[in-house]
Amino acid sequence: MSDKIYRVNMSNLSFKIEEVPQTWMGLGGRGLTSTIVSEEVDPECHPLGPNNKMIFAPGLLSGTSAANSGRNSLGAKSPLTGGIKESNVGGTSAGIFAKLGIKALIIEGLTKDDKDFYHLHVTKNHVEFIKVPELIGKDNYFVLNAMMEKYSKKVAVMSIGRPGEMRMLNANISVKDPNGKLRSHGRGGLGAVMGAKKIKCITVDAADYKEVTLADPEKFKIASKMFTKSLKENFSTGQALPRFGTSGMVNIINEAGGLPTRGFRSGNYEFADLISGETIANNIQERGGSTTHGCHAGCVIQCSQVYNDKEGKYLTSGFEYETVWAFGANLGIRDLDLIAKIDALMDDLGVDSIETGVTLGLAVDAGILEYGDGERAYKLIHDDIANGTPLGRILGSGSGNLGKLYGLVRAPVVKNQSMPAYDPRSIKGIGITYATTPMGSDHTAGYAISVNILRLGGYVDPLQKEGQVEMSRNLQIASAFVDSTGMCNLIDAPLLEDPIALPTLADLINARFGTELSVEDVKNMGKKILKTERAFNIKAGLTSASDRLPEFMKYEAIAPHNAIWDFTNEEIDEFWNF
Amino acid sequence: MSDKIYRVNMSNLSFKIEEVPQTWMGLGGRGLTSTIVSEEVDPECHPLGPNNKMIFAPGLLSGTSAANSGRNSLGAKSPLTGGIKESNVGGTSAGIFAKLGIKALIIEGLTKDDKDFYHLHVTKNHVEFIKVPELIGKDNYFVLNAMMEKYSKKVAVMSIGRPGEMRMLNANISVKDPNGKLRSHGRGGLGAVMGAKKIKCITVDAADYKEVTLADPEKFKIASKMFTKSLKENFSTGQALPRFGTSGMVNIINEAGGLPTRGFRSGNYEFADLISGETIANNIQERGGSTTHGCHAGCVIQCSQVYNDKEGKYLTSGFEYETVWAFGANLGIRDLDLIAKIDALMDDLGVDSIETGVTLGLAVDAGILEYGDGERAYKLIHDDIANGTPLGRILGSGSGNLGKLYGLVRAPVVKNQSMPAYDPRSIKGIGITYATTPMGSDHTAGYAISVNILRLGGYVDPLQKEGQVEMSRNLQIASAFVDSTGMCNLIDAPLLEDPIALPTLADLINARFGTELSVEDVKNMGKKILKTERAFNIKAGLTSASDRLPEFMKYEAIAPHNAIWDFTNEEIDEFWNF
Repeated sequence: MSDKIYRVNMSNLSFKIEEVPQTWMGLGGRGLTSTIVSEEVDPECHPLGPNNKMIFAPGLLSGTSAANSGRNSLGAKSPLTGGIKESNVGGTSAGIFAKLGIKALIIEGLTKDDKDFYHLHVTKNHVEFIKVPELIGKDNYFVLNAMMEKYSKKVAVMSIGRPGEMRMLNANISVKDPNGKLRSHGRGGLGAVMGAKKIKCITVDAADYKEVTLADPEKFKIASKMFTKSLKENFSTGQALPRFGTSGMVNIINEAGGLPTRGFRSGNYEFADLISGETIANNIQERGGSTTHGCHAGCVIQCSQVYNDKEGKYLTSGFEYETVWAFGANLGIRDLDLIAKIDALMDDLGVDSIETGVTLGLAVDAGILEYGDGERAYKLIHDDIANGTPLGRILGSGSGNLGKLYGLVRAPVVKNQSMPAYDPRSIKGIGITYATTPMGSDHTAGYAISVNILRLGGYVDPLQKEGQVEMSRNLQIASAFVDSTGMCNLIDAPLLEDPIALPTLADLINARFGTELSVEDVKNMGKKILKTERAFNIKAGLTSASDRLPEFMKYEAIAPHNAIWDFTNEEIDEFWNF
Repeated sequence: MSDKIYRVNMSNLSFKIEEVPQTWMGLGGRGLTSTIVSEEVDPECHPLGPNNKMIFAPGLLSGTSAANSGRNSLGAKSPLTGGIKESNVGGTSAGIFAKLGIKALIIEGLTKDDKDFYHLHVTKNHVEFIKVPELIGKDNYFVLNAMMEKYSKKVAVMSIGRPGEMRMLNANISVKDPNGKLRSHGRGGLGAVMGAKKIKCITVDAADYKEVTLADPEKFKIASKMFTKSLKENFSTGQALPRFGTSGMVNIINEAGGLPTRGFRSGNYEFADLISGETIANNIQERGGSTTHGCHAGCVIQCSQVYNDKEGKYLTSGFEYETVWAFGANLGIRDLDLIAKIDALMDDLGVDSIETGVTLGLAVDAGILEYGDGERAYKLIHDDIANGTPLGRILGSGSGNLGKLYGLVRAPVVKNQSMPAYDPRSIKGIGITYATTPMGSDHTAGYAISVNILRLGGYVDPLQKEGQVEMSRNLQIASAFVDSTGMCNLIDAPLLEDPIALPTLADLINARFGTELSVEDVKNMGKKILKTERAFNIKAGLTSASDRLPEFMKYEAIAPHNAIWDFTNEEIDEFWNF
């Protein structure tokens, strides 16, 4: 039976099940969400008004046994950036959507009554709308546990905490992982869109699903084995990431002088050792927990972990480099356990750790807290953001808006979205990605660190301008495709280093759908996605002037390389010539 | 002796006196500020960073005896809209600049030290930089009185209150009027630009000035008499405005169903009578004060007034329609004296009454106050905005930013600037002006009320789309020119009704400078200014998508006409085809 489009309308609490239009057939994940947003959402609409839509879509390979294919995409117009947004996540939703034959779940409209919140329960051929007054004001773990109790431990759950209910711009949508912990549709304030639609949670029932059909099971099996081998034999995905998680980057980026420290004032953090992936791994060895953990079924990288406190009690999981950085180097906090506690709090509330951490970093310039005061940082999130006090509203709105309210010029944003954990002045390739990706500054859109720092499959000097635009463009094209497959973007290491990885990935898709995609075809798919997203943004009112890093990076040099952001506008704009 | 450009650099506290470039010779007021901003300010710069500039320029006729020619323009990139801004004001500064031979005062750069605030004292051939620690944290009347004491009652004073120091986006720059009261360079947050440059106040010494030279004194005298006659014989400028002030519009706009009430939810305010110009005039008659008062020397309209409380004690002056509306109909307050008290408070603090009132109106949707609670409104300004509490920072950032922080779709803004006192759904011509003016929604940019409601020199049905774009375009072209002359924009009534008014205005300029401008030439001047401003905005990243009213006005009809905003994008964009 062919996949369907499930379309929910909140304005009358109705749903329809539709055939997949021919032009959407070969699309999945980001390729599909960006296409639907582009075709169906008025680019000039208010992101929290009746004309924005949320589109969930599993990747092309989601639901299959292919390693690392369990990521689900969510697309919408972002209330943070004002442009298109795709955010993908691990957890269990992608696989269940795919196995129920749901190619995309489109949610449109606003409820008539502004009071109630709803729980949407999606099953094969049905969507149920349930008022949930008992969940209002509750956070993600409460909702998650209530849903697991009501249905089963296998149910997929997507939910928002209080910040999402309050439509804060740092609000994520949280997603259940295989162990009943949380992952996040992060960045761009998509939790606020769900809050505006008065949806507290969405569950997708796993009871009724079937394995996805494969056009050529034998070919799939061979390709799948080859792809898994490529992942396992790669140093990054086979060794470094399972050992140290993504936080293995702390020492690497610090040594490169690109670890933004104390509000992007230096590229070196003197306490980097205390918050490094190595320290996390050591602590886990001493305290129990686990250095390896997969955010979705079928993950062979296992970059996630279970991190306990000194007493051996569970503190957090999915303790990522960007979070460790945002509260560690960026806020000058050196107490790793406190950062882990903040991480768990943010998971429960459903707020973006990059946006929140960077906002707190800028809040130092506003006199709201001091560097190194982790207890105050915790309290500001726990008391203010969670309860929506005026200060919490400010801190929940992102660093760009904080900068506007306090008249600060040092908001490290592009398209109003805060920069992640790599300084673009001293790692210029990632700067080009921040500047040009239609998503607002986002390292995952084209992870130039792989080439600038890790030298995967090549090298471009991070401190020179030469070659960065082309490199970022190639990575962004590849990422747009990878984000369509359901694969996690950490597979970029084998893709860059192992010549058979990309053809094998294409083969997996061909074996799943009976298509004949070449490597050239998948590159064209990536290009088309980027151009579709860019076109939406232009119609939404973004321009080349939106493809700029904040001005202060042009005149404020950063240690240790005394580097400034020295690209001309023309050099940046060259990105879109393809 | 020819006029000069005074150029101040805050980064090293230096100044230069420069010849006027040939291409700036025929320009004044808005025409000159917009040209200089366009030529010298990087459109992509941060408005509060080192590369923005403030340009003060008196109008072409300022300093002469021509009636109503005392307005001074201030140009910069706006931190509220992100686009170009020109804001002109009465008071005494234009005349003194002109008589000192200062064609423009350009202030550039940022101070190295972020601690000190400066007082700039401008005299003939000199600019003095004085640290003023004793003025930090003081508001406008304190500064004004200190300056009048230090120099004389004739010194021109431009200053900021605490909100400007704190770089709030509703901060104005206040200007001394002939009676030692205050007028405002309003809209667009220019007070924040002055705060960022660490300038607490600017004084211009009146001791040393000379009368401006006239190329043809006899011709000037004749034209001046004719122009004054035209103003005095016109019903609006000769009778209505002197009797009721601008607040005479309350009843008129209410009757037209275009008085935005309780956060733009109706076009009628049931208590309009209690806040009308007629009531103001009656109160003044009973309590003392004055119904007529000129904001600058040479004003023959005298639309301002001195408004006392029930005990006959001075409450406020310059009590404008937009302020009365913003706190009256828009906030549902019916106590006129309380509105007057709020007006005086806002003058002292230096905050924009439209931006602040509209923000408070939207704050009702955020649950911060209730309609009709004037005491709470007063307190929010007096305690929160003035002291920069977190809530004050929010309320001081304008309704567009409040909307972002609280996830509200009903922010009545264009280019992030709050709409004034005329609902664009039921008075569509002003909607076209709001949408298209490069300034962000601003009634003064092309006062369509004159034609839609007052039927001055013609009539376009306010509820129909036909003719609005052309009408708004013609008015905006005329206003861009009028804003360059130093004339107050209330002269639009005789300009629309008396065929000799515009040629006479051109004659005044010709007699002043020895030029031979025709009516066609002045129209071309207006067109050129608009196109210069628009080009700056496009480079700054604004697009046609910025020329839009808020989406909610497209689907939320307003009583009593059940009117929505029904222009298509194409119809709006037609504006720029000239």
